[in-house]
Amino acid sequence: MVEKIIIDTDPGQDDALAILLALASPELEVLGIVAAAGNVPLSLTTVNIRKVCELAGRSDVKVFAGCSQPMAGPLVTAEYVHGATGMDGADLPDPTMRLQEQHGVDFIIDTLMREPAGTVTVCTLGPMTNLGQAITKAPEIATRIKRVVLMGGGCFEGGNITPAAEFNIYVDPEAAAVVFASGAPIVVMPLDVTHKTLTTRPRVEAFKAIGGQLAEVLVGWLDYFERFDVAKYGSDGGPLHDPNVIAYLLKPELYSGRHCNVEIEVNSPLTRGMTVTDWWGVTDRPKNATFIRDVDADGFYALLTERLSRLRR
Amino acid sequence: MVEKIIIDTDPGQDDALAILLALASPELEVLGIVAAAGNVPLSLTTVNIRKVCELAGRSDVKVFAGCSQPMAGPLVTAEYVHGATGMDGADLPDPTMRLQEQHGVDFIIDTLMREPAGTVTVCTLGPMTNLGQAITKAPEIATRIKRVVLMGGGCFEGGNITPAAEFNIYVDPEAAAVVFASGAPIVVMPLDVTHKTLTTRPRVEAFKAIGGQLAEVLVGWLDYFERFDVAKYGSDGGPLHDPNVIAYLLKPELYSGRHCNVEIEVNSPLTRGMTVTDWWGVTDRPKNATFIRDVDADGFYALLTERLSRLRR
Amino acid sequence: MVEKIIIDTDPGQDDALAILLALASPELEVLGIVAAAGNVPLSLTTVNIRKVCELAGRSDVKVFAGCSQPMAGPLVTAEYVHGATGMDGADLPDPTMRLQEQHGVDFIIDTLMREPAGTVTVCTLGPMTNLGQAITKAPEIATRIKRVVLMGGGCFEGGNITPAAEFNIYVDPEAAAVVFASGAPIVVMPLDVTHKTLTTRPRVEAFKAIGGQLAEVLVGWLDYFERFDVAKYGSDGGPLHDPNVIAYLLKPELYSGRHCNVEIEVNSPLTRGMTVTDWWGVTDRPKNATFIRDVDADGFYALLTERLSRLRR
Amino acid sequence: MVEKIIIDTDPGQDDALAILLALASPELEVLGIVAAAGNVPLSLTTVNIRKVCELAGRSDVKVFAGCSQPMAGPLVTAEYVHGATGMDGADLPDPTMRLQEQHGVDFIIDTLMREPAGTVTVCTLGPMTNLGQAITKAPEIATRIKRVVLMGGGCFEGGNITPAAEFNIYVDPEAAAVVFASGAPIVVMPLDVTHKTLTTRPRVEAFKAIGGQLAEVLVGWLDYFERFDVAKYGSDGGPLHDPNVIAYLLKPELYSGRHCNVEIEVNSPLTRGMTVTDWWGVTDRPKNATFIRDVDADGFYALLTERLSRLRR
Ligand SMILES: [Ca+2]
Ligand SMILES: [Ca+2]
Ligand SMILES: [Ca+2]
Ligand SMILES: [Ca+2]
Repeated sequence: MVEKIIIDTDPGQDDALAILLALASPELEVLGIVAAAGNVPLSLTTVNIRKVCELAGRSDVKVFAGCSQPMAGPLVTAEYVHGATGMDGADLPDPTMRLQEQHGVDFIIDTLMREPAGTVTVCTLGPMTNLGQAITKAPEIATRIKRVVLMGGGCFEGGNITPAAEFNIYVDPEAAAVVFASGAPIVVMPLDVTHKTLTTRPRVEAFKAIGGQLAEVLVGWLDYFERFDVAKYGSDGGPLHDPNVIAYLLKPELYSGRHCNVEIEVNSPLTRGMTVTDWWGVTDRPKNATFIRDVDADGFYALLTERLSRLRR
Repeated sequence: MVEKIIIDTDPGQDDALAILLALASPELEVLGIVAAAGNVPLSLTTVNIRKVCELAGRSDVKVFAGCSQPMAGPLVTAEYVHGATGMDGADLPDPTMRLQEQHGVDFIIDTLMREPAGTVTVCTLGPMTNLGQAITKAPEIATRIKRVVLMGGGCFEGGNITPAAEFNIYVDPEAAAVVFASGAPIVVMPLDVTHKTLTTRPRVEAFKAIGGQLAEVLVGWLDYFERFDVAKYGSDGGPLHDPNVIAYLLKPELYSGRHCNVEIEVNSPLTRGMTVTDWWGVTDRPKNATFIRDVDADGFYALLTERLSRLRR
Repeated sequence: MVEKIIIDTDPGQDDALAILLALASPELEVLGIVAAAGNVPLSLTTVNIRKVCELAGRSDVKVFAGCSQPMAGPLVTAEYVHGATGMDGADLPDPTMRLQEQHGVDFIIDTLMREPAGTVTVCTLGPMTNLGQAITKAPEIATRIKRVVLMGGGCFEGGNITPAAEFNIYVDPEAAAVVFASGAPIVVMPLDVTHKTLTTRPRVEAFKAIGGQLAEVLVGWLDYFERFDVAKYGSDGGPLHDPNVIAYLLKPELYSGRHCNVEIEVNSPLTRGMTVTDWWGVTDRPKNATFIRDVDADGFYALLTERLSRLRR
Repeated sequence: MVEKIIIDTDPGQDDALAILLALASPELEVLGIVAAAGNVPLSLTTVNIRKVCELAGRSDVKVFAGCSQPMAGPLVTAEYVHGATGMDGADLPDPTMRLQEQHGVDFIIDTLMREPAGTVTVCTLGPMTNLGQAITKAPEIATRIKRVVLMGGGCFEGGNITPAAEFNIYVDPEAAAVVFASGAPIVVMPLDVTHKTLTTRPRVEAFKAIGGQLAEVLVGWLDYFERFDVAKYGSDGGPLHDPNVIAYLLKPELYSGRHCNVEIEVNSPLTRGMTVTDWWGVTDRPKNATFIRDVDADGFYALLTERLSRLRR
């Protein structure tokens, strides 16, 4: 049966691949894509999402603008990773499709209230401002969500933007805290996973083999994107974060994790944005999330390459 | 010239008097009233506001439901002060007027975007969840607000619900922090003021002298409302908080204060919800609010009694 | 019966008057004076205490050096109030009496273990580092202290060095927290009191009338000391903080307050060092201190002047 | 050249092995051993240290009692790991050697002031209360320490007593913060290392092969000690934490790590006691510690077994 999903995203090269993966997969029905502020400001992510949809030949997808700022303060961005546009590495034409008029927060609320309870999955690929705002505005949606699958956080990998915090959670910890306390079923795709799905040369070559303009764009993005992490970690390739969220929907058997308690640190300046994960069960705090720790990285890339190749025209 | 205002409120007997004062004053045009969760849950404040409008013969006023929960967690209420209904002390008929369909947060945003910049005042008489949410969803409204006049906080009076925090701010410190950091002009009507406007016997007698059903309702409310604070503080009457916000719009000369920095404590469990007010200018933090400290209490009650008497029918 | 006291102090002109008041009072036996780091560094307070003892003709008093730094980090000082020496305003000769070899922390511990339990009062006139350290090193002393009488904190007066915190507590909140949690009986002499004992002209004139070198020194100190607060508050004279601690021992009937819970904020950067005082009993936290709020200021100055005049030689 | 060391410890079976390793090694001169409160209360650790010294035939070692409580509050202990005595698993006779009269904090201070600067290493195997207190009381000792080598904290391994914090740091984060901010050279032996030095069967067999009463005691301790972690982690043996500190002094080539910034979280209830380690250099904070991450575990056990066998009598 087809799974209905909302994607909330701040492209970002890896967000772009995640969107493409979803659009290429018949198992998923993308009800709408909401732009978040994160890697780059909202004014850019609203454009980037539409560029990606048009690249996939899907100008019919509904795209919404969400919030331009985190719940508790000014936006932190990551142009040093993604480039000034957020999708540096390939030139795509300005989109011709239009943004929807409705605010992304209201689209999330309306969709969850309209569709039968337990049938819509929300995939967040950036800071969780829009979902956090939606739950605050209409708390009754939380228990109607089938599941939230999110890229964010880290446990044994620690953080990336600070020693303790991963970027997506760090940018809006208050929003993340609202989501984790909401009662919605949650699957976390943390750095522990994404740092295992590296863009090694053979994997990039496999993308290149798809051929056509699509392959050029993909390889351009990945070459740009991996620079930062290769320099930082000395790894063979960069971590392809966001497509793991979509791949989990398609092939959960690629992943393994543990149901446990995850709390979001919002108070301490030193550890703000940390996903404090009780992997070993040393507290009495309630289990509120499935925290993924391992992935079959080759299986993930095989899936990704196969699906993206379907988009070649 | 008439001042256009939005009232965001959680009645509350003192909220009720504030609403009546606004509706009785030709200097003010009430564009809409938004219900907040605070003294009692949203399901009750949405009813209470309409009861008050109908008591004033103003079933034409637009009333909106706002958020049912604070930005960062579960609601704290104050039935121990206001009674189970929030307006114990007088029985009013169930309202016949309807709630507007639009969410209160969107009403705030739409109104501020539609009206000319700098022409609409937002009066908050309860926790600031709705305004905080509106600014997060649409940050561009902050600089279009003429001014926010709010009941909340305390400086030399300390707090009431905790040693450090006043109720309205304590219930949703994250929302208050968003508002105080937004750049909107802000006037704070704290406990320092409202504890000086006590419902002494002569003042209640003056309400009684208005006569009719209105007077009965007013006196019933005030008798109920003052019990808690009279018992706690041993004072002559209770503090009539919220009408000070409206009275300030009508007769600012009754009030005096100081422009200074006010920060909201959100982190510490011990001091959460405190309005940390730099009255003496000992920090370099930017001045972001006019903090009112003194009031001509007799002038305030004279104004209130005169205006409310106009509503007698 | 004579009360045995230890004075822990960081002179400071007002500390100096407190020391003189104690040495002039036959009701008190000063077992020793411990130097704290606070208004100025330890290297100066150890000198200043001895200058004051010699001014009083009491080179027999045992003076000890305490800790040079707060429990959790670097020292903050207040030369902008007290001058570079800590006792600007009068020139006193370099002391000839020697410091004791024992560390002040150990003097506190040894004295409390040696004297019968419940017979020694500890007066702290500066940051509470030494007493906090002593209790941490030897927790068994806490219940042997007759009472701790301390100058520090504020409630309805707020803070002075920050909007929320008074200087003595702000400099070492961790030490204050240890003391307030120790179980020792505590009397707090906060800004609420000391801001009522101002160095008005008639009061300074009364000191001048004592005559001799002593009067010259006292008036020189007070003239210097009051400058800062007169400029800040526009008050008639400056607040003579520390002598209130000693005056309380001599004439408790000059003071009134309330037994309540006082907690020390150590965590929040915004409110660090605040004495969160549950004056109205709104929490269930245990009552651990007598918080003084009012003083007969004229009675205080009469006592102070009378006693200091005995030191004239 | 012989390295002079002070050991500060809360035995603890693994502390016991660390003490034995030091006493068995001619490269080290143990100037004194200070008892800390940690795994069990001070009243037991003072006994346990002397039992271990007598087991090693070294009743000449100077043993001191330190502080019985952490700097900022009540003690947390770990009898669920170590047993009621702290060294369950082997019965040792009550010690006949005496405790020194001097307080352990003063022994640390006096030793560091008496010995030439840069010649004394301080090894902490438990909560760092005593060293933190010593530095607070006499800050001048910090730059006279050759190096502090401590067992505590974790980075990629996270915590053990909470998801974020390792036991030794969690018990007294304020003390740890004082040490890490002191300017003393620091080497951290965290869970990242000690979880790699597991008491596997062959390694325990090697201890057993030493023979005699000593082997019986060692094996008794290790059998008891490993139960908790084997049950929790499902690992082959338990992590032998503290001997790594001593082994590092003897054979640093067994270890590898990185010089980086380590900050101690003291404020947040959720992450209190965490060693926030900037392994990847993503902050500008100054590098203040060498954080060890890897160990040649077989080399470690070979060293340990060889040295302990020298103690057999
Ligand atoms: Ca993303
Ligand atoms: Ca209200
Ligand atoms: Ca002082
Ligand atoms: Ca240990």
